[in-house]
Amino acid sequence: MAREKIPAAPSVRRLPGYLNIIRALKEDGERYISSSFIAEGLNMEPVQVRKDLAITGIFGKPQKGYPVESLIAAIEHFLGWDTLRNAVLIGVGNLGSALLGHREFAMSGLNISAAFDTDQQKIGTVVHGIKIMDGRTMEREILRLGIKIAILTVPSSQALDAADILVRSGIEGIWNFTGIKLAVPDHVTVQKEDLSSGFAMLCIRMNNKHGGA
Amino acid sequence: MAREKIPAAPSVRRLPGYLNIIRALKEDGERYISSSFIAEGLNMEPVQVRKDLAITGIFGKPQKGYPVESLIAAIEHFLGWDTLRNAVLIGVGNLGSALLGHREFAMSGLNISAAFDTDQQKIGTVVHGIKIMDGRTMEREILRLGIKIAILTVPSSQALDAADILVRSGIEGIWNFTGIKLAVPDHVTVQKEDLSSGFAMLCIRMNNKHGGA
Repeated sequence: MAREKIPAAPSVRRLPGYLNIIRALKEDGERYISSSFIAEGLNMEPVQVRKDLAITGIFGKPQKGYPVESLIAAIEHFLGWDTLRNAVLIGVGNLGSALLGHREFAMSGLNISAAFDTDQQKIGTVVHGIKIMDGRTMEREILRLGIKIAILTVPSSQALDAADILVRSGIEGIWNFTGIKLAVPDHVTVQKEDLSSGFAMLCIRMNNKHGGA
Repeated sequence: MAREKIPAAPSVRRLPGYLNIIRALKEDGERYISSSFIAEGLNMEPVQVRKDLAITGIFGKPQKGYPVESLIAAIEHFLGWDTLRNAVLIGVGNLGSALLGHREFAMSGLNISAAFDTDQQKIGTVVHGIKIMDGRTMEREILRLGIKIAILTVPSSQALDAADILVRSGIEGIWNFTGIKLAVPDHVTVQKEDLSSGFAMLCIRMNNKHGGA
């Protein structure tokens, strides 16, 4: 498998947090924003913020900072969040339901337009405005809709089977919330969401603060 | 506010993923593991894996790699996952329920020992083995239990009020799943979980693969 090069992955991960702060400032009617202001809100160094923002191709002006409108546009364009992306969600359990109701996704250009489950009790019901479809029709429906992104929230035991169907359905990106490593062809991107990463950070940071000699 | 220094945050975030792979190999009865094996499983460069593991104080041996048992122990000790940490969960909606049922937390030494909600329909019910307690008794109960970690999954509108109560209850670490930036005293660590970071990574990686000139 070709080794994938992701330029500045930690910077990419931080961009959505910057975007939240910049958008809030825009709501307040501000026209310029400084790297120090963003850094303060996230307890970071301004120089790191400037470096991260530079990957989107934008640079601030001395004294004034970044023009808010252009900065939002640059980040959104860099992430591809300036166009709406449709996605399907597979597995409407607790986590799947929570994600269907996660309104902030709209801010990332992510639109969950269909959801599937195999539970007869759930099929046909509407969760957060989205009608749950029969998992057995998944391949046909995804092909018909032409959707390329899937959010996978099935139980671990069903993860591999579901991923196989997604690949056959023309899905090119899987956001994997299951605990299972998926085997997919090279043209499919799997982004694994691992909650324990955030908990690891919390533990290390608490230890830095309270522990230590 | 003192600027917080987190050594090698991206490395810390990757450690849980390594731990999963190493533990699986241990299950298979293997005694040594190479950085290449770990790297292969995560589509990374072996040199990066070695650098990341070095922050836990362990180094591999040429030819043989890392002793599996010691490597697991080193990572767990570094993250503080070798001791059980009790936590409370505040807000038993869809996301809160999903986290209560997230069995993998046990692998991180995280034990959710109490959950609170203000909904009369939920109070007294049992979700994934945990009895939901009355949110109005939160401060008293957390103080009584002596718990220091809280997982915050309330609606955004209740996030600030809930955080105030958590601080008064002696909580020192808040894993914040709400969309709200919390204002807490310096001795309290807030780790914000931002789902859009993972989606940003998926977008950039898909674009690297399918877009580009």
